[in-house]
Amino acid sequence: MIKIVAVSTLKPGVLQDYLQAAAELIEKSNQEEGCISYQIYQDKNDETKVAMFEEWKDEEAIELHNNSEHFTRICPQLSKYCVGDSVVTFYKEI
Amino acid sequence: MIKIVAVSTLKPGVLQDYLQAAAELIEKSNQEEGCISYQIYQDKNDETKVAMFEEWKDEEAIELHNNSEHFTRICPQLSKYCVGDSVVTFYKEI
Repeated sequence: MIKIVAVSTLKPGVLQDYLQAAAELIEKSNQEEGCISYQIYQDKNDETKVAMFEEWKDEEAIELHNNSEHFTRICPQLSKYCVGDSVVTFYKEI
Repeated sequence: MIKIVAVSTLKPGVLQDYLQAAAELIEKSNQEEGCISYQIYQDKNDETKVAMFEEWKDEEAIELHNNSEHFTRICPQLSKYCVGDSVVTFYKEI
């Protein structure tokens, strides 16, 4: 299993718009065969930071996700609510 | 539910010693009433980084954890394997 934490910094005042735009991505990602979980959280101490917590069966599942219709269509739409690029960290079990 | 991601940077060559020292903390934390999950992962792209992924029912559970015998005894022991302080981020559901 591989965990991904993708942290994005939002522009001021766009949280609800961002969540609305992200809803379809979250729903369809959770339906992917290789997806264990795909959830959005907010930094308790910095409301401009939102984080997608993802759990995938393996690298192949991540590859399929990154090439999925919903990922390739929705991610560019989300980036307009963000400041700079997301910080994406991959974690493996030890 | 509150998620905590606590990322520590390890000194070279101490991973196994760190994991051995952390094992009791992980086991006892998972047994705490307010703990939903408490797992350790490693950054796939930076082997010096380990991350504790924690899920707690609420703030009170975290408070109890931070004052628990195992946390207060073991964390100082873990810090000798680390470079600098852990980066701890709290996340809330949105």
